[in-house]
Amino acid sequence: MEERIGFIGLGVMGKSMAHLLLAKFGNLNIYSRTKEKALPLIEEGASWYSSAREVAQNSDVVFTIVGYPKDVREVYDNMMNAPLEGKLFVDMTTTEPSLEIEIGAELSKRGASFIDAPVSGGDKGAREGTLSIMCGGDDEAIERAMKYFLVMGKNIRHLGPVGSGQHTKMANQILIAGTMIGLCESLVYARKAGLDINEVMATISKGAAGCWSLDNYGPRIARGDFAPGFMVKHFVKDMKIAIDESRKMGLNLKGLELVEKLYEEMEKEGEGNLGTHALYNAIDRL
Amino acid sequence: MEERIGFIGLGVMGKSMAHLLLAKFGNLNIYSRTKEKALPLIEEGASWYSSAREVAQNSDVVFTIVGYPKDVREVYDNMMNAPLEGKLFVDMTTTEPSLEIEIGAELSKRGASFIDAPVSGGDKGAREGTLSIMCGGDDEAIERAMKYFLVMGKNIRHLGPVGSGQHTKMANQILIAGTMIGLCESLVYARKAGLDINEVMATISKGAAGCWSLDNYGPRIARGDFAPGFMVKHFVKDMKIAIDESRKMGLNLKGLELVEKLYEEMEKEGEGNLGTHALYNAIDRL
Repeated sequence: MEERIGFIGLGVMGKSMAHLLLAKFGNLNIYSRTKEKALPLIEEGASWYSSAREVAQNSDVVFTIVGYPKDVREVYDNMMNAPLEGKLFVDMTTTEPSLEIEIGAELSKRGASFIDAPVSGGDKGAREGTLSIMCGGDDEAIERAMKYFLVMGKNIRHLGPVGSGQHTKMANQILIAGTMIGLCESLVYARKAGLDINEVMATISKGAAGCWSLDNYGPRIARGDFAPGFMVKHFVKDMKIAIDESRKMGLNLKGLELVEKLYEEMEKEGEGNLGTHALYNAIDRL
Repeated sequence: MEERIGFIGLGVMGKSMAHLLLAKFGNLNIYSRTKEKALPLIEEGASWYSSAREVAQNSDVVFTIVGYPKDVREVYDNMMNAPLEGKLFVDMTTTEPSLEIEIGAELSKRGASFIDAPVSGGDKGAREGTLSIMCGGDDEAIERAMKYFLVMGKNIRHLGPVGSGQHTKMANQILIAGTMIGLCESLVYARKAGLDINEVMATISKGAAGCWSLDNYGPRIARGDFAPGFMVKHFVKDMKIAIDESRKMGLNLKGLELVEKLYEEMEKEGEGNLGTHALYNAIDRL
């Protein structure tokens, strides 16, 4: 018997992921804080419910991808009172590893399973079903979720118990924080030194300085295009989580803390909706 | 008529570059602070001189690749008193852009030409003649040097007037500084979170966190191999130059300054001869 699928959170990422699931499996129970965002999916045949709880009640497997940790908590608090025995929940939000562990334990008490499965690959990956999916949970749960993951993503990895998906995503964001400050400082320096940024990029991009950020954001910086690939405010959220977690582990990640502070200042300057590569301008202002 | 070629500085990089030039052009006048380093080249047919000045006197084109800015200054001070009219000097050391501009001006007064041409690609690139060569100088000088550059390198770029090669190399090192702290903090975090570092790398290396440093140093970090690809002490030298230059331009590169400080502390701990990826251990200690 086919499982009934629920999907909660229809933002830029969620709406594309939900669309792919609906197109493949023919049924989808949806809820989003803003109903407007659900209209295209309802037209495609999805069933709208007016709360996360009702989605949980009427589904066997529920995917969530919302915004901040408080949103994750709210959605799961709301669902906890539904009958959950035998159901599987998958949170694809990038959020606190410790929150996921807590949710996993709560669900387990109610006879339900849980996977934390944050993604990378951006809106393009979500549209094309080519996301990287970083999973934490037990083998059985991951096996059960795999046919859905395969619709949404390509590189699907099981990294360990619940929380491991988020920790892996944090490791990813920490590395990006470093490459972004390196990239933006490098190009500000090059421009101030009177060099042609495009020539510099062509010179250094194939060597030891090469990185995805240079290949993808370098040309945008060179032409002054600071529209978001990934928004400053979302990166700040992720880095704050990573900093909290790293401190809990007794780590002192000075690079990450510096980069987070610079991006937080950008947010305060009203630049939260710009792309993360707008750090170039922030460094130029220092 | 063939030009007589001089080569000064036979360290890890210089000895391989000199070897390629000698093999291709059949003559090479050499000098190095430590004569021992010259013995294999002398056996191959190179002519040893006991000072930089004598090499300059007996050569038409002179390549230099030494250590610190003070070494560059010493070598060029020594050569300035030789008859230099019509000669070409190429400094391939990574050093201060402003020092190169000064040397270029001094040589120009004596009717000689100058190119600053630092390289990247490491000892492997030097051995195989596949270095990236970042050139600053006038068109005529670069054209004259090109047949020699083509023996030593692959990606040869003319970035602007004298000093532009060094500035480009600094932009390269600034970006590497960012990727190195991002990489090392990311992997320290991942390990402390209980993840398998190799699994994490396989998960994140193809996405937005992807970089040369991850591909090349990640596996070495995972197996605890901190032998140098590039030594901490050399990276400190480069970053200090970049910081000095950036301050002269009125820039405040906080990321670069933080990374330099961390590496300088490693040097003080006696880790100057380790590879730059040993930053992983330094971060773990913080």
